[in-house]
Amino acid sequence: MTGSIRLLPLLLFVSLGNGGPAVAKEGRRWTVEDVVTVPADFDLSLANDGKSLAYLERRADLEKNETVSILHLLDLRSRVSREILRAPSAEQLRPLPKGKGWSLLLDRGVGLQLYALDAEGTIKPLLGRDAKVTVGQTEGGLFAVRSGAPRRIGILYHDWSPDGLWLWYATLKPRSEPVDVSVDDAVVGQRNRRRAPVKAIVELRLRSAIGEEWLVASRPSSDRLAFYFGGNVEWTEEGPRYQLEQSDAERTEGIGTFAWSFATKASRPIEESFGFPAIGLLRGPNGGTLASEGFGSALALTETRTDGRKIRYGGQPYYIGDPRSAGNWLSADGRTALLGVRTLSHPRYGLVMLTSRRAKPLIHSSSLTACDFRKDLAWGICVEEGLNQAPHLVQVAPHDGRVQTLAPLSSAHESIAPLHVTPHQWTNRLGYRSTGFIIWPRDYQASSRYPAIIITHGSDADERFASADMQWNYPAQLFAERGYLVILMNDPSARQQADLWNAYMEWSGGPGTLGPAKLRELIWLNGVYSFEDAIAELTSEGIVDPDRIGIAGYSRGSQMVNVAMTQSDILRAASSGDGNYLEPASYSDPKDGYHAVFGGPPSGNYLDAYRQLSPSLRADKACGPILQQMASPFAGAIDFYAALREAKVPAQISLYPGETTATDETHLFHIPSNRLRAMRENLAWFDFWLRDRRDPELDDRGAFDRWSKMAKQWKPGCTRALGAERR
Amino acid sequence: MTGSIRLLPLLLFVSLGNGGPAVAKEGRRWTVEDVVTVPADFDLSLANDGKSLAYLERRADLEKNETVSILHLLDLRSRVSREILRAPSAEQLRPLPKGKGWSLLLDRGVGLQLYALDAEGTIKPLLGRDAKVTVGQTEGGLFAVRSGAPRRIGILYHDWSPDGLWLWYATLKPRSEPVDVSVDDAVVGQRNRRRAPVKAIVELRLRSAIGEEWLVASRPSSDRLAFYFGGNVEWTEEGPRYQLEQSDAERTEGIGTFAWSFATKASRPIEESFGFPAIGLLRGPNGGTLASEGFGSALALTETRTDGRKIRYGGQPYYIGDPRSAGNWLSADGRTALLGVRTLSHPRYGLVMLTSRRAKPLIHSSSLTACDFRKDLAWGICVEEGLNQAPHLVQVAPHDGRVQTLAPLSSAHESIAPLHVTPHQWTNRLGYRSTGFIIWPRDYQASSRYPAIIITHGSDADERFASADMQWNYPAQLFAERGYLVILMNDPSARQQADLWNAYMEWSGGPGTLGPAKLRELIWLNGVYSFEDAIAELTSEGIVDPDRIGIAGYSRGSQMVNVAMTQSDILRAASSGDGNYLEPASYSDPKDGYHAVFGGPPSGNYLDAYRQLSPSLRADKACGPILQQMASPFAGAIDFYAALREAKVPAQISLYPGETTATDETHLFHIPSNRLRAMRENLAWFDFWLRDRRDPELDDRGAFDRWSKMAKQWKPGCTRALGAERR
Repeated sequence: MTGSIRLLPLLLFVSLGNGGPAVAKEGRRWTVEDVVTVPADFDLSLANDGKSLAYLERRADLEKNETVSILHLLDLRSRVSREILRAPSAEQLRPLPKGKGWSLLLDRGVGLQLYALDAEGTIKPLLGRDAKVTVGQTEGGLFAVRSGAPRRIGILYHDWSPDGLWLWYATLKPRSEPVDVSVDDAVVGQRNRRRAPVKAIVELRLRSAIGEEWLVASRPSSDRLAFYFGGNVEWTEEGPRYQLEQSDAERTEGIGTFAWSFATKASRPIEESFGFPAIGLLRGPNGGTLASEGFGSALALTETRTDGRKIRYGGQPYYIGDPRSAGNWLSADGRTALLGVRTLSHPRYGLVMLTSRRAKPLIHSSSLTACDFRKDLAWGICVEEGLNQAPHLVQVAPHDGRVQTLAPLSSAHESIAPLHVTPHQWTNRLGYRSTGFIIWPRDYQASSRYPAIIITHGSDADERFASADMQWNYPAQLFAERGYLVILMNDPSARQQADLWNAYMEWSGGPGTLGPAKLRELIWLNGVYSFEDAIAELTSEGIVDPDRIGIAGYSRGSQMVNVAMTQSDILRAASSGDGNYLEPASYSDPKDGYHAVFGGPPSGNYLDAYRQLSPSLRADKACGPILQQMASPFAGAIDFYAALREAKVPAQISLYPGETTATDETHLFHIPSNRLRAMRENLAWFDFWLRDRRDPELDDRGAFDRWSKMAKQWKPGCTRALGAERR
Repeated sequence: MTGSIRLLPLLLFVSLGNGGPAVAKEGRRWTVEDVVTVPADFDLSLANDGKSLAYLERRADLEKNETVSILHLLDLRSRVSREILRAPSAEQLRPLPKGKGWSLLLDRGVGLQLYALDAEGTIKPLLGRDAKVTVGQTEGGLFAVRSGAPRRIGILYHDWSPDGLWLWYATLKPRSEPVDVSVDDAVVGQRNRRRAPVKAIVELRLRSAIGEEWLVASRPSSDRLAFYFGGNVEWTEEGPRYQLEQSDAERTEGIGTFAWSFATKASRPIEESFGFPAIGLLRGPNGGTLASEGFGSALALTETRTDGRKIRYGGQPYYIGDPRSAGNWLSADGRTALLGVRTLSHPRYGLVMLTSRRAKPLIHSSSLTACDFRKDLAWGICVEEGLNQAPHLVQVAPHDGRVQTLAPLSSAHESIAPLHVTPHQWTNRLGYRSTGFIIWPRDYQASSRYPAIIITHGSDADERFASADMQWNYPAQLFAERGYLVILMNDPSARQQADLWNAYMEWSGGPGTLGPAKLRELIWLNGVYSFEDAIAELTSEGIVDPDRIGIAGYSRGSQMVNVAMTQSDILRAASSGDGNYLEPASYSDPKDGYHAVFGGPPSGNYLDAYRQLSPSLRADKACGPILQQMASPFAGAIDFYAALREAKVPAQISLYPGETTATDETHLFHIPSNRLRAMRENLAWFDFWLRDRRDPELDDRGAFDRWSKMAKQWKPGCTRALGAERR
């Protein structure tokens, strides 16, 4: 580990490492069921009178083998919480502008519809619409970016006018698609299609208190503003304003803002802009737009007013606008803003309160991941959680920074004896910093060297409790229980330096000035250097056994796993989750990105660039066995598997099923039995290859014979791969 | 054109070429509608009393925009034919053992069911079963190798015992598939999956004259003997014998023969064998099994008796067992066999009658493509057709070889003035012969050089009338009407030489002694040599213009088109139909074949072999514009398109739709509007690139601007490509 910007890592963890046993509380050990049943996706909503809190969570129901939404009601005086109902889907919990209750969308068997919840916990239907469109990853279903089982949609979105007199809602109608010859790009777009594209019409509707209705706009479901954000409505005295994506033959990425008038009962266009809609532009206490600007130590919060003047709140080691943060609020008088932030080092989520020109952070050792505040921002309720802290409800007073524990959100998880977890920053040979955490083996002894597993997935290593975003089907806590050192490592943050930021911009925007070779180094090899240098450091400290290092990651993490395994010789086993990017077979899906990374398609002169990075084209260089766990049978992943086996590298590809043969498991698995099985498969996989152990808990009893057979056939080409010979 | 085995080609065509105008009959010219409405897939069935013939044909119904089956009844005395009905599906026309009528499977809106047709043309339901399984290329449909729209199956198969007392039939039941994790090969098998696999149960049932029923066997639809052949039943005195594929964990390719007993009402196993079932093993007049053995001039017909002795019928320039031939019959006394044959040179279909040790061929200048004969083989009715001869019915007397015209099958096509067509054999630089035909430009003048189009598809160039097998959506007759010389060329036949035969065996069976490089030469480059040498010959004779040569082919032909375009510099435009084989993206679908051709998967050291042959990896070497017309959005075809465009080679990919967005057009297009449009697209494509003409009949008016734009961007890398500069 070299580089001058090294921060605290080793000093910190050595001291904490020794202090480990001291912080371990009494309690039981982790099970895979614990990981699956961690509650998540909290949605909090304070009653108007401030006397109660309604909240939603998503959680695995092991008995039903479904992930369900659970609605709770918490009396804030008695602190007594009641479970009101469980449903396959529940969302958009909003206080009714008049009265003490809430409205929400629920699926109680007739599709997603609008219901009211009163302060006593009674549920009543408010509005229902024909649910003829199924959304989900199934044949006949409309595709949408979301996890979960397919569901039928009656009401897609709802919002109340502040006076409670008007309901804005969106519904879906089937759209029968004429079949016609498609040509060129329209065919290329179907290259990786696995089921027929389904389309629907989003109807944006306005409904008065006495039940009169107006169809405000009718849009194809490809309009993301209409489909995902219900038209991003904003209420004015004259009527609702809403936004639509207007991609047609002439305007490819226009966004139109329209105003519907209560008086004329009609819409008129207000404004047209370009680029992807800035949903959730943050307003500051001076009427301007907030932003986090700059890199590394120069990162600063600014507010740009409509007159162009910029207010600088000074440098902060955190930034606003992260979708994982707790949310954003502006006080009723517009003079105080409360914003969710994410910290740069020791990544976690807190709040910052802005008043006039002053920024007051509210950042503790764990995270605030979901909140709701009173309109005057005097106080609110949040979910507090950390890697070592099961989520619980806290009362937060932003003005004095007071945080007071209210109630646990999962007492089952409170009974687990916390593992020892330490935050770190690693600096690699190029000087790039990666943040992350180490989860220490349950009974860590400084005198032993431990096998280690790196878990990587973009920037998701932060203070959240067993977050599926980060650890997916890699049961980090169980690895630690079994005696592995678990390294949760983020990619080098693009907020540390302009070049890296530009590389990511070029990757998403298409070829640019940095060029493919530099891009490949900054975004992929750079990450591999971080793995190698961190492991070298832990090895030199006598903590890990360099012959027993594994790596796991899904999605962006699967890219890093597959690249690391075919570029580096320090890793002895890997698990790669639901990935296929960088493979020639995945070309054309996100074409601009591929051209940025490789220069062009996987043919002609560009083929050599693919040979530099595409895992399947470098399978013969792999130094360790690779398991791929998939939610869909991506061709790129299958190619990597086939190339590994052709090169006699031990490999397995496991495809986890959806609810039916015509339905896929989702990228973030939502079927509890799949999560349990995938986690057990990972435990057995790493135990077999790193600890020479046949895990009796693995269901698939034929696996060990398959793996042993592959181990015997294998002659690792890389220098340090000794694992196979031990067998 | 070199090589010593050259047969008749030039001499023949020069004389016939000059004689062209003399043979042209009066009549109208071809239209694309004529090509689409050519009747095909005849199924003939003589009444027991020999007084009438029922027959089925498939034909495009332009008004309904469907391909339909039409049932006709022909009175053999009056020669009056009546159309009885049209249905989406009709098949398995069989004489009822008792009485004068027939039975057949018909889809009249409630799925495919069993009906009776009497001699007066009345249709009555005989047996119906719930049609809960849809077979076809659609989501939710069971895949089967067949063209046509998806259809629901009530009765899948039927057969009568010779005494007419027993009905053997097959039906389909839905099979609910448990979803489970799949691993390794089971995942690889889903690489190119475009919809969820649907499975069903085939029930083989026996029904007595009084309606008692027995379930004889219940098999998964993956049992090809059960699904496609209804168990391949054979009747004995004791009861029906039937065959099943028995692939399970232990036996991967076993075939079991079973006997069901009328007495015990139960089955017992008789025999077990291995390998793919030999459906339609041909019995000879000496009780043995017939075969065509040997290569080239040593090709001979043999009969191997059960005692192992072999009867040799002597050398013949034809072979038996071709699925396109008219069929096979054994007389009631077993002493005469009548067999459909295909000739080697001037490919066409005839019959050979075997008695004792004598073979008597019945081969005319055109083909007999479908027949039915009396039980004593005294006479029968056949469909006679040729490249220049619309199908008509003939009466055939095998014993004296007499063929007598009975009735036209499509008077509309009789009114077209025949084009001049000549058969040829071309010998290439390696000495391999390719058979084929030339369709001459309508008003051919020996003083002009003509643009030419080669149409290639395996061995389908033969004496059939506008056969969709051969010419697919390439309207050969229209090209000739427009002044192109059309060359219908077969691949060098594997029956001419052992090495070539072995190459094909190795291709289908997996890697062998010839090795990948030799295989690539014999099966692909060899064909390109044939194209090049034939064109050189026609050029040296002053017949074709070497700067205006195009090529078209689908399926196997698309391989040859794509390879020719990226290996040869003599072709100026191409149309490639519904192909993707040889592309890296298609790896793993037919894995053994790929390993035979390339040595292994498209990674590691094998990648160089792919660079030798895979069209998308050689796109920058393409010398002419390439149109791909697709029935499915195959990734390999899309990759080739993308690579061509990246190399600035003019290219288009057009995907033709099925009945709905969830349904595919089939490999042989079955939707008439698609065929019409695809043919017009081909006419316009070749006219544009070879004749610099903008066809006013093309629907897609934007096409010419797209094509012109591509022509301007293009800088052909190959020496002789001058086409672009002319624009």
